[in-house]
Amino acid sequence: MPDKELAEAKRILYGRSLEPLEFSAEAQKIAEKSDFQIAGYRFEAEKESTRTSRVIRLGLVQNAIIKSTDEDVLVQRDSLHQRMVPIIEAAALAKVNVLCFQEAWTMPFAFCTREKKKWCEFAESAEEGPTSKFLSQYAKMHDMVIISPILERDDRDIIWNTAVVISHTGKVMGKSRKNHIPRVGDFNESTYYMEGNTGHRVFDTKYGKLAINICYGRHIPINWMMYGLNGAEVVFNPSATVGALSEPLWGIEARCAAIANGYFSCAINRVGTESFPNEFSSADGKPAHKDFGHFYGSSYVAAPDGSRTPGLSRIRDGLLVTELDLNLCRQVKDKWCFQMNQRLDMYQNKLGDVLYNDQHGKKSEDLIREEE
Amino acid sequence: MPDKELAEAKRILYGRSLEPLEFSAEAQKIAEKSDFQIAGYRFEAEKESTRTSRVIRLGLVQNAIIKSTDEDVLVQRDSLHQRMVPIIEAAALAKVNVLCFQEAWTMPFAFCTREKKKWCEFAESAEEGPTSKFLSQYAKMHDMVIISPILERDDRDIIWNTAVVISHTGKVMGKSRKNHIPRVGDFNESTYYMEGNTGHRVFDTKYGKLAINICYGRHIPINWMMYGLNGAEVVFNPSATVGALSEPLWGIEARCAAIANGYFSCAINRVGTESFPNEFSSADGKPAHKDFGHFYGSSYVAAPDGSRTPGLSRIRDGLLVTELDLNLCRQVKDKWCFQMNQRLDMYQNKLGDVLYNDQHGKKSEDLIREEE
Repeated sequence: MPDKELAEAKRILYGRSLEPLEFSAEAQKIAEKSDFQIAGYRFEAEKESTRTSRVIRLGLVQNAIIKSTDEDVLVQRDSLHQRMVPIIEAAALAKVNVLCFQEAWTMPFAFCTREKKKWCEFAESAEEGPTSKFLSQYAKMHDMVIISPILERDDRDIIWNTAVVISHTGKVMGKSRKNHIPRVGDFNESTYYMEGNTGHRVFDTKYGKLAINICYGRHIPINWMMYGLNGAEVVFNPSATVGALSEPLWGIEARCAAIANGYFSCAINRVGTESFPNEFSSADGKPAHKDFGHFYGSSYVAAPDGSRTPGLSRIRDGLLVTELDLNLCRQVKDKWCFQMNQRLDMYQNKLGDVLYNDQHGKKSEDLIREEE
Repeated sequence: MPDKELAEAKRILYGRSLEPLEFSAEAQKIAEKSDFQIAGYRFEAEKESTRTSRVIRLGLVQNAIIKSTDEDVLVQRDSLHQRMVPIIEAAALAKVNVLCFQEAWTMPFAFCTREKKKWCEFAESAEEGPTSKFLSQYAKMHDMVIISPILERDDRDIIWNTAVVISHTGKVMGKSRKNHIPRVGDFNESTYYMEGNTGHRVFDTKYGKLAINICYGRHIPINWMMYGLNGAEVVFNPSATVGALSEPLWGIEARCAAIANGYFSCAINRVGTESFPNEFSSADGKPAHKDFGHFYGSSYVAAPDGSRTPGLSRIRDGLLVTELDLNLCRQVKDKWCFQMNQRLDMYQNKLGDVLYNDQHGKKSEDLIREEE
């Protein structure tokens, strides 16, 4: 395809073209030595008179598990902790301010097995657990906010799917639980945990207002919306999802959320195929088996103007570094006015009508039938 | 690119591949003679035991204006009426059951001029106007539902941006007004009409439950959602939008809506560049001019499973025929459960909180700050 036409095709598919970021040779070297992809892009924004630029760098991490799933829980978890050491170091060298890992990053995505034993042992305290302690030192050392999505066990032994936000000071700033739980394909994750009760928290960090919409929540636009209404400038979507199921949706949903809500969205997916000790069936008429498909990586960042970075690899571990100016959020809102025109009061009333009708077995008054 | 890799790239970008539809030679001949593109695709669904298939064909029409914008209003409008005669005929031969035109199809998209005189004369009664009368005969003749987005003038001389739904019997079944009005780029359409007051009507027609989300409403996911909550199986998005502004968003938003809401969405955009008699400025620092850009066509249909048809041409008039089984909507809902897991009651409460806080100058309780 001629250069000019290719540029136009790319613009239509991906929005404006982004400059690649330069990294320190040191970061490159670590990536090479530790066998992970490192890639970086820059989203520009306009200069303003009344606000200084708020340029930050985000780091998105995607990775495969290290140890076999029949190893001891601690061996598996610690191998993943160790896997992050060079990745965090490269991120620090690449001047990343906010680093986010994939969903349930300290474990294989074992929820397809429906077995409780062993897998529940990966759950740990958000505030005091070994993973938060492990990351806390790096957050403080590198002046970096770290978002750590784990399987959480609370004081009442209730298990949650939770993202822990560790401040640049090394303190746990808070947590945000997964709001919508899949009952699809290989998963009814409510075998392990129920819908989250932390609402749509936004963390007002040194590097901007951050929120986390975990995995399946990306399919629910009103969920994305609520983080925006609470002021989020960046929403992370740490995920674990396989090719045959969701891949054609992957490039659409987080990007649409960025457009609709005037923030940056960050889609993160693990990589690799995970095999489990005992066979399980997948409710699809096929024989029992030990894995359920390929996690396709392809992590990316989308901007409020609809542009996006290329995705990371479909098969390799990777660190995606994105430089952006948070001021772009308001600039796009000022231009498009999606928020101003949103008519939220109408929707609050309409939702009330829908819930009432549903509870009382009534049809919507907005359902118009042919006259007799 | 090797065939196998190309197929995989297309799957990731567009979802499953669709069979092309065969048309009667007659329909092809009309398209050739009248110089418009005709293209067709088929979305398959599974067979069910308790419901028979509900296979219908949708027709989406995109077109340029015919006459110069300095011609008389009636000359311009009637030329567009006449343009539709062969297109409707081809649609009937292609067995289209529901035909939808682009936004404000009887006129140039003159709202950029901010002039009232002449352009307001295009507005007409939804129920009794010449355009509804013109289309009524064809709807009845071809047993076809026709959706006709026009500029509406009501009995109180209030102007609206309205889609008229004409039943297969030829009767006007009702109308649906544009819910969200742009104030962006060349447009503050509220110069001419305000936000619609018809809510999120769904029309229970002979060919399924249809709704219309006009143009800028595609940027508001909760707007798309509400049509779904009211039972829509197909939502049309008749639009008028230009390349530099919205083209990277075009493939994302209607498709995300289909995924999130379990219905088919139909994105329709006009084609061509429209020049106006008097120059106007575009609030972008550039000199006044007589046109504001190229309407890029590219009309397409997206299915609830995320797959989509290719778009029509970026420059030519066209008729896109899509065959689909409405049963696919419920099949995808049963699989993904986005509706079951939506937690609408939580969102109704949360929207109340947002509106209350906004009115009382309070911050969200969900905004978490660094501890001192």
